[in-house]
Amino acid sequence: MTHPILTRHHVCFAGQGQTPMLFAHGFGCDQTMWRWVAPAFAADYQVITFDYVGSGKSDLTAYDPNRYQSLQGYAQDVLAICDTLALEKLIFVGHSVSAMIGVLAAIQAPQYFQQLILVAPSPCYINDDDYVGGFERRDIEQLLELMERNYLGWASFLAPVAMKNEDNPDLTRELEDSFCSTDPEIATRFAKATFYADNRSDLPRVKIPSLILQCTEDSIAPKAVGYYLQHHLPHSTLQIMQATGHCPHMSHPEETIALMKAYLAETL
Amino acid sequence: MTHPILTRHHVCFAGQGQTPMLFAHGFGCDQTMWRWVAPAFAADYQVITFDYVGSGKSDLTAYDPNRYQSLQGYAQDVLAICDTLALEKLIFVGHSVSAMIGVLAAIQAPQYFQQLILVAPSPCYINDDDYVGGFERRDIEQLLELMERNYLGWASFLAPVAMKNEDNPDLTRELEDSFCSTDPEIATRFAKATFYADNRSDLPRVKIPSLILQCTEDSIAPKAVGYYLQHHLPHSTLQIMQATGHCPHMSHPEETIALMKAYLAETL
Repeated sequence: MTHPILTRHHVCFAGQGQTPMLFAHGFGCDQTMWRWVAPAFAADYQVITFDYVGSGKSDLTAYDPNRYQSLQGYAQDVLAICDTLALEKLIFVGHSVSAMIGVLAAIQAPQYFQQLILVAPSPCYINDDDYVGGFERRDIEQLLELMERNYLGWASFLAPVAMKNEDNPDLTRELEDSFCSTDPEIATRFAKATFYADNRSDLPRVKIPSLILQCTEDSIAPKAVGYYLQHHLPHSTLQIMQATGHCPHMSHPEETIALMKAYLAETL
Repeated sequence: MTHPILTRHHVCFAGQGQTPMLFAHGFGCDQTMWRWVAPAFAADYQVITFDYVGSGKSDLTAYDPNRYQSLQGYAQDVLAICDTLALEKLIFVGHSVSAMIGVLAAIQAPQYFQQLILVAPSPCYINDDDYVGGFERRDIEQLLELMERNYLGWASFLAPVAMKNEDNPDLTRELEDSFCSTDPEIATRFAKATFYADNRSDLPRVKIPSLILQCTEDSIAPKAVGYYLQHHLPHSTLQIMQATGHCPHMSHPEETIALMKAYLAETL
């Protein structure tokens, strides 16, 4: 009998190494979006991919509106996978909101983690006094209003903003299709949990070293956010990428892989 | 630490049920070819898919020419997965050569199995006295010679023969691409293990009930093979499909799903 956690999250295994790497997808995405990056680590790591409940091929019947009204619920999912697989010395790779989900998980249960790789992370999307998150609160409120009023219109607005890289329209289409294939209620709740999250005060509590991959011209997580993270996240290394947009693992997989490998070669 | 068997076979989990279903792909294929059929069982079963070593995203470094020179080696892989996951009451679904791999596994370790679903199976591809396998020995020898001499030519010859359904050329292309993406030495050894196998004497030893899905106009496993299997496999049920070709799970997923569900509803 397999463990229900594995089926709940459509967990997939690959790779020939000993050290586990867990790839966590971002909002409105699923594990397939790691398909250009994750295989590059298969020769040296155990590559584990999964879908959050409500995304991809996860078990929709396990969706719990209370559990998933904050990022803590998603962090509990990450820890449930760590616990089920008895992971040790984990390299957690989180894209976008999954970066903060990984931060929350690593604060709560550092024993599983060895490194955090944070791809286009942001601890807070809303500007606040001196803090530049990139959005005014009103921007976020309008974005979420649009989402509730016109989900498909919202998807076709946000996908090109997040993906950028207009020369590769297939990527934007994939992201938009992924948004559209998510249940609108689940997506809206996840979007609220994401865009209203403020994890700035959590950052100093992280004991696990981390790599911050900060994109150029990222409309979701601007450069100032990368510098803020570097300053407030202990044992962090910031890399400003040439990649533009918010999804470098899709638009610029080679650079993403190269920076991850260089960092791991130095730190492991 | 995850179990190396899971990474070796790129094992993926899905589904919300209790009873496990293990989907085993055929020669020159990988688990992705179950993508039209397997999700239909996710609501009621634990759906487990995997790649044999040498196929898909399996661990190529685990390839052992001795182990995989006969179908027994592949059967040991199935049993390793059963053992690692402590599967019980398994519904094993095997396409083409995986049907006989499942038969061998179920003879050796019946404790894991509840049902065998054999999609386009054949216990012996070569005609022998009264037995109609569909090929003369010389046909098979020439096919394997072509494979060693001109692997790509062989792939573009065999793919349309196996797939049939010329009105859907994407399927033939997918099968041909899958053949071509397999290491030629591994594919040739698997082809020899497949096409020279004679498992007719194993059939009466199977204690697990089975469903035989026999296609119409299948150039790899003709109808006579389906009747032979029904006659010699204890507790078997034969269904002649309207589906043509050798890959009904790809070309006719709805009929495949419907027959599987009807059988399971009757027997479980």
